[in-house]
Amino acid sequence: MRDLSTDTHSLSINTVTLRALGGLENIVHACARHGVPAIAPWRHEIATLGPARAAKLIRDAGLVVSGYLRAGFFAGDTARRQKIRDDNRRAVDEAAALGVGCPLVVVPGGLPQFAQPGSRATKDLGAARALVEEELAELLPHARAAGVPLAFEPLHPMQAAERGCNNTLGQALDICERLDPEDSGGIGVAVDVYHVWWDPELAAGISRAGKRILTFHVCDWLTPTRHMLNDRGMMGDGVIDIPAIRRLIENAGYRGFVEVEIFSDAWWAVSPDTLITTIRDRFRRFV
Amino acid sequence: MRDLSTDTHSLSINTVTLRALGGLENIVHACARHGVPAIAPWRHEIATLGPARAAKLIRDAGLVVSGYLRAGFFAGDTARRQKIRDDNRRAVDEAAALGVGCPLVVVPGGLPQFAQPGSRATKDLGAARALVEEELAELLPHARAAGVPLAFEPLHPMQAAERGCNNTLGQALDICERLDPEDSGGIGVAVDVYHVWWDPELAAGISRAGKRILTFHVCDWLTPTRHMLNDRGMMGDGVIDIPAIRRLIENAGYRGFVEVEIFSDAWWAVSPDTLITTIRDRFRRFV
Repeated sequence: MRDLSTDTHSLSINTVTLRALGGLENIVHACARHGVPAIAPWRHEIATLGPARAAKLIRDAGLVVSGYLRAGFFAGDTARRQKIRDDNRRAVDEAAALGVGCPLVVVPGGLPQFAQPGSRATKDLGAARALVEEELAELLPHARAAGVPLAFEPLHPMQAAERGCNNTLGQALDICERLDPEDSGGIGVAVDVYHVWWDPELAAGISRAGKRILTFHVCDWLTPTRHMLNDRGMMGDGVIDIPAIRRLIENAGYRGFVEVEIFSDAWWAVSPDTLITTIRDRFRRFV
Repeated sequence: MRDLSTDTHSLSINTVTLRALGGLENIVHACARHGVPAIAPWRHEIATLGPARAAKLIRDAGLVVSGYLRAGFFAGDTARRQKIRDDNRRAVDEAAALGVGCPLVVVPGGLPQFAQPGSRATKDLGAARALVEEELAELLPHARAAGVPLAFEPLHPMQAAERGCNNTLGQALDICERLDPEDSGGIGVAVDVYHVWWDPELAAGISRAGKRILTFHVCDWLTPTRHMLNDRGMMGDGVIDIPAIRRLIENAGYRGFVEVEIFSDAWWAVSPDTLITTIRDRFRRFV
């Protein structure tokens, strides 16, 4: 297992963590100043500059783009289908413009009324899951042609209705294997400790995933958790045995960036310099 | 599948739902007045009267005890082990005093520092799970001798750290099968739609469970959910397809009570008469 206490190359920060900085340029400069080697930006942050200028900004600051957030939110009424597809293809094109092989994180979305507000309300989680798989299959050829690997992310079961109807690594891998039985590399998974740490089948899932693991996210699970979306913890402040999961991931062959993604009202209220300093410190000690 | 729109025999109310009534006697009288045929009480409610007098109170009101809450919270420091065992055996004895064959719900508990406050803090979920199985094995002979079936309840993954480190029906059944390979009936599962509705393996799990399903709990999953423990929804107010799950349960052979268990700050603030009337109505329409 890599020794992250001295490693200065493996850290990436998902920019949602730094959203208090108020935009891509501030984030890039802050990360460069703190010696953070990589970031994973979101679409809305790229929108102002456009992907080509954003890519140049990031590159000129000496940073790498470790991933792009995000495509998905597939389930919706039939009338919305083409709009959803077009939007996801644009996300692929943006990821392609951001850098060679930059994985695009795909979050499935939940039931149609939450994935695409205004869609007819339903309780049929199975139908939403079937639609996610169908639309992933639809998106995959475009992503392959663009050279953009799709990193499909199973979400914690508490997000099943609202944000992600695929809730275990095993379920995500079933889909990958059906869509890409030859393991030719166009589709894999995003493993986020926050979503998967509780899973009794986690070790088996990670071992089965092997080189399908395209990106690895860390944060921590707080007790109590006060908000289902925006109360993630800083590494070391919660109950997740992050090194144990990283060991599994690395035993499965993963050698990519370890991306810190912390949705947190509490950390968004802290000065960004303190936040980045804390991330660097905790990364060395608790990841 | 039973027709609950006209069924007057299958409803049970878990007394936590009615905790605003302030004690067992009020709960029993209110349920009798509203024609609720069964309740599932908690240990602290029985404590004042003692199990024998509580049983008589319930029986004299014409009610049935459908289950008893709860044993478990197994993980803790070695020094606490005997105290935990003794307490769980007392729970078994109380369940035996409450009625013939009354299932005792067993909630595993989470990591030791949460299951038994004061215990050494750890992130080892696997060790907590192993301990739960060990202690279930320890409790089982006592429960069998007392004629009390243990209904082991897997809890939603969002409760893994704090309340229940066993998080899928499959995982609970693995334990049942290891402890009781002959399926002789002393140990089974409690299936609560709130905990399991998201599980992609749910249909397979229920079918595999068969007669090991000892109790079935309903409520609903709200979007958004504002509190991880006390924001459960009334049936019909959320996204769970309860009849679909009940169909699976009944196809697996279950014919027992359908128990309404709603931890909810919102519903605890409503007048108990309104609450029970609402439960009866929603039970007919959404269960």
